[in-house]
Amino acid sequence: MTNIDYNALRADFDTPLYIYDFDMIKARYKAIKDQFIAHKSLICYALKANSNLSILKLLASQGAGFDCVSIGEVRRALLAGAKPYKIIFSGVGKRQSEIKQAINFGILMLNAESPAELESIEQIAKELNKIVNISIRINPNIDAKTHPYISTGLNENKFGVSIDQARIMYLNAQKSAHLNPIGVHFHIGSQLCDIKPIIEAANIVSDFTSELIAAGIEIKFFDVGGGLGVRYDNEIEPDLYEYAQGILGALKGKDLTILCELGRYIVANAGELLTSVLYEKQSQNGKRFVIVDGAMNDLIRPSLYSAHHGVSLASIQKPNENFSTTDIVGPICESGDFLAKNISLPQLQNGDLLLIKSAGAYGFSMASNYNTRPRCAQIAIEDGKVRQIGKKESFEDLIQNEKEFL
Amino acid sequence: MTNIDYNALRADFDTPLYIYDFDMIKARYKAIKDQFIAHKSLICYALKANSNLSILKLLASQGAGFDCVSIGEVRRALLAGAKPYKIIFSGVGKRQSEIKQAINFGILMLNAESPAELESIEQIAKELNKIVNISIRINPNIDAKTHPYISTGLNENKFGVSIDQARIMYLNAQKSAHLNPIGVHFHIGSQLCDIKPIIEAANIVSDFTSELIAAGIEIKFFDVGGGLGVRYDNEIEPDLYEYAQGILGALKGKDLTILCELGRYIVANAGELLTSVLYEKQSQNGKRFVIVDGAMNDLIRPSLYSAHHGVSLASIQKPNENFSTTDIVGPICESGDFLAKNISLPQLQNGDLLLIKSAGAYGFSMASNYNTRPRCAQIAIEDGKVRQIGKKESFEDLIQNEKEFL
Repeated sequence: MTNIDYNALRADFDTPLYIYDFDMIKARYKAIKDQFIAHKSLICYALKANSNLSILKLLASQGAGFDCVSIGEVRRALLAGAKPYKIIFSGVGKRQSEIKQAINFGILMLNAESPAELESIEQIAKELNKIVNISIRINPNIDAKTHPYISTGLNENKFGVSIDQARIMYLNAQKSAHLNPIGVHFHIGSQLCDIKPIIEAANIVSDFTSELIAAGIEIKFFDVGGGLGVRYDNEIEPDLYEYAQGILGALKGKDLTILCELGRYIVANAGELLTSVLYEKQSQNGKRFVIVDGAMNDLIRPSLYSAHHGVSLASIQKPNENFSTTDIVGPICESGDFLAKNISLPQLQNGDLLLIKSAGAYGFSMASNYNTRPRCAQIAIEDGKVRQIGKKESFEDLIQNEKEFL
Repeated sequence: MTNIDYNALRADFDTPLYIYDFDMIKARYKAIKDQFIAHKSLICYALKANSNLSILKLLASQGAGFDCVSIGEVRRALLAGAKPYKIIFSGVGKRQSEIKQAINFGILMLNAESPAELESIEQIAKELNKIVNISIRINPNIDAKTHPYISTGLNENKFGVSIDQARIMYLNAQKSAHLNPIGVHFHIGSQLCDIKPIIEAANIVSDFTSELIAAGIEIKFFDVGGGLGVRYDNEIEPDLYEYAQGILGALKGKDLTILCELGRYIVANAGELLTSVLYEKQSQNGKRFVIVDGAMNDLIRPSLYSAHHGVSLASIQKPNENFSTTDIVGPICESGDFLAKNISLPQLQNGDLLLIKSAGAYGFSMASNYNTRPRCAQIAIEDGKVRQIGKKESFEDLIQNEKEFL
């Protein structure tokens, strides 16, 4: 995204402002899809990273499938033009009403994460007199070596079931008149830059799939989850060729459709948060703060995960060589409200613009109204053209579900 | 809150559900107000803890003032019936548009947190041809010994200014034709159970106030901030009498109105999050998970601050002695989505109800739509009667600012 007039964007849409590079989103999707060109594959976009309807529409137009973790996400995908047969529904806590709606929408499959949940799915399928495609999430007990909050493949995590549990569940599903087990699934964590644990998991799950097939269970989808890491700072992104070859190798010639669920990998670096400087201040011991109009309610990753986001100058009125170390903090009344710490920036003044990089994933999707701050506008840039894809919330929006009770 | 039919509440309002005890909110407010009965005082409620309009209306009816940190909060307070002359506006990053609106609303005072911000306030007051009441937040560099994210009184924090900076700012304000310095302010942190640091800060700021008064600056308000701790687990709440006497002692006979800004102290233990059990599951190594329909998007404190919230059974069909240790986790797709860890609960089944305690503060106010989860309903119980004070979001609410761009 070069030659962007950020001052004009602020004038049109206010700041903070989420800016997405739709060309990059398409390119990232295509890069993965192309790796599996000689094989059946369904690259699903994981909505939890960023569920903006226009992003979903863009990806649907490219042929993407969608990985949803709530019925709201399923409805978003459908509204954006996704085909039901390209939607999967995962997550450890599907409500009965969600399962029922998902079955009625006719989505590709529900991914069960516990024996109790599989029973619920079967019961509801029976009530609806339908046969439901399912997969089961297998927790291969592999340490993905990522942040504890986004590591999901260990026994101590809430996700999936062990192979021993899965075996029983698949055999029960095989016997059921209302369940059709067509997929195996695993997902060992997020932001993984080392693909070895993924390939190791793929091999374990592939061997288990052989066992299922030998037992007469007609598995068609091999869902390798997502979790490919992106470059926030100095990370080296996994090589997609090696990743694809590792998975294809693990399949050992099985005729299965490879299904991926990638969110962060597709959108993280395609998004930036534009924010305006409000004030500079310096504490008595010389510590410098740049106070901006973006805050933890807009981007909670630094506060919640101690995440690093690069920062760049989007507009400086005059070149300034006077760099020093600073924190970038927001207006929210807690010390946890920061966007960057100990970075080097020139002296700034009210109205200068900063870009918080790599904010396309888990930025807007985790935004809140903390401190009664409206969620900001979102725009897309595609083929050099700017268009709005999300409106800034109004004060009326913020009180709409409370004011009638006054 | 006894004799509540939680099953009926779920039937009427769905779960998760925020339940607030309005009698307790009134009692907590009165308990503080009464401590200063022989002294001029304005007990302000800090909206950031929970800005539900009906809670604000309740507190306004009791005579409370309001501590706001955004123009949205100011507007909420006014809408709920607050008198402008009982509203203060704090925060490190007030936008110029916010300052302008606050001045036009005629609120009691703006609390400036940096020299640059004070200049902005003066400039805007000049443009509006008004004289604006201000206070200045003084950072007394005292370690409040609380969680780093809610400790605010150290030099390394973004809040306030040193006494040396404040002295210059007050003298500038005194000279200004558009600023009227009427208050001194400090606030050293949140969830403080030891009041010694607060009293220590009060003494430091009181001495500084003597200096300001001697310089001819007519200070009328002594704003001691908030931050009184509450009992989440085994904490011992500060003694209000000692707190009040400590502050009055620090004033050393000065004829100033004492202003407090309490949020958590008033509402934290007056709120509970009712949630339904979806599934029980056990991992291969025996680790137990109770999966509920509430999640980190409803209550982020456990995940963000490693905060403890008590849990109690709101309904068990039949008594059950079979207790074991479990985590309580939500449906959100990350391991950071938990509400409690390692607590002892009986075997539960789908539909059993749990209460997450002490959820009145920084619960709903920090809620998000992560995973496209609607924010839940809110109800009040007052004099034994239940009434709704917030509607559950609909799917239409969640997409209202995006769908027109499809």
